[in-house]
Amino acid sequence: MQRPQNTDHISKHITWQKGEIDQADREQINMHKGAIVWLTGLSGAGKSSIGIELERRLFHTRIRTYRLDGDNLRFGLSSDLGFTPEDRDENIRRVGEVAKLFADAGLVCITCFISPYKHERQRVRKSVAREGDFIEVHVHCPLEVCEQRDVRGLYKKARAGEISDFTGISAPYEEPEHPEIMVDTSKLSLDKCVTIIFDYLRNHGYLGTAIE
Amino acid sequence: MQRPQNTDHISKHITWQKGEIDQADREQINMHKGAIVWLTGLSGAGKSSIGIELERRLFHTRIRTYRLDGDNLRFGLSSDLGFTPEDRDENIRRVGEVAKLFADAGLVCITCFISPYKHERQRVRKSVAREGDFIEVHVHCPLEVCEQRDVRGLYKKARAGEISDFTGISAPYEEPEHPEIMVDTSKLSLDKCVTIIFDYLRNHGYLGTAIE
Repeated sequence: MQRPQNTDHISKHITWQKGEIDQADREQINMHKGAIVWLTGLSGAGKSSIGIELERRLFHTRIRTYRLDGDNLRFGLSSDLGFTPEDRDENIRRVGEVAKLFADAGLVCITCFISPYKHERQRVRKSVAREGDFIEVHVHCPLEVCEQRDVRGLYKKARAGEISDFTGISAPYEEPEHPEIMVDTSKLSLDKCVTIIFDYLRNHGYLGTAIE
Repeated sequence: MQRPQNTDHISKHITWQKGEIDQADREQINMHKGAIVWLTGLSGAGKSSIGIELERRLFHTRIRTYRLDGDNLRFGLSSDLGFTPEDRDENIRRVGEVAKLFADAGLVCITCFISPYKHERQRVRKSVAREGDFIEVHVHCPLEVCEQRDVRGLYKKARAGEISDFTGISAPYEEPEHPEIMVDTSKLSLDKCVTIIFDYLRNHGYLGTAIE
């Protein structure tokens, strides 16, 4: 990983360890790039479904991949965090840092988080080691469709006031202005959405020679 | 990953996402197991040197591996943490959680941290998905030898009182009682230490058919 520039706040006793094996070495052996595919969108828009299916498709084409899920991570790394705005922000910060480690390890890391704020996503984008390692995917779906799906009954609870700060209802969702990819799950099938992302990765050289 | 048992403190709105691709799938394609090689020992004992060399040797035998380093991680995931006992404990907790994600992703994750307390190491050992996924390596070296080496001048500063809570000087190091592996870097060469760990991994089936 690149050493970040602004580290003034960190103890002077730390020295940066340059590992002998770096991202380029791993990419060479994997025959594809390491990168972050960052899915963002409303609850119920289809991030997890797309993430799971994209992971499967990449895996079966010999692409090393790992999926970080908003829900799953809450049982481990972020188990100390609650759901206040500050804790949610910290959760997304940690996800970004872990995703960067996975990209550095040469994997295509897929993250499935609402991540409603621009500054949260920009923070990750700006701090990746190489420009282009962060691929923002707006999993778009109109609020009314998400609310109609309401697979987990969360919108109903949010409307009833049982959940506070619920994105789209009582908290904002800041849409990406220039995402690398936008898929509209109210108009396209799951399979089509995954294909769009997969093709983007292939056509932009992320999948290297692994799938040729 | 296995869903942890005690999740009462976590929001009821979370559901556990079962990814379609699991650790066993990844291990099959990698032709070796995912696991955590947890190096523990005094500052200056040689954890980072061993970690870097072990990583290189594994990499060159086609083992997917990634190294988490106490220093490196401080610039990213743990950049919000200081050096109080609580912050150090939280740092080690996060390292454990990230290491488990890497093992789940099918990689041999090497961690290089002093991790001086038994409870910190036990916490990771007890929470890994499968028994045996946590391999504790005591990188042993007598305090006086570490202090004599003092590569970064930290022991001198600790003796002068410029660094507080320094392991071995003003804070305890709780030696592992039953580590899977113990190497004494005051008696063995770096190459020999790495070979001992590598052979343990091979002889216990962690490296599968990747190196045959």
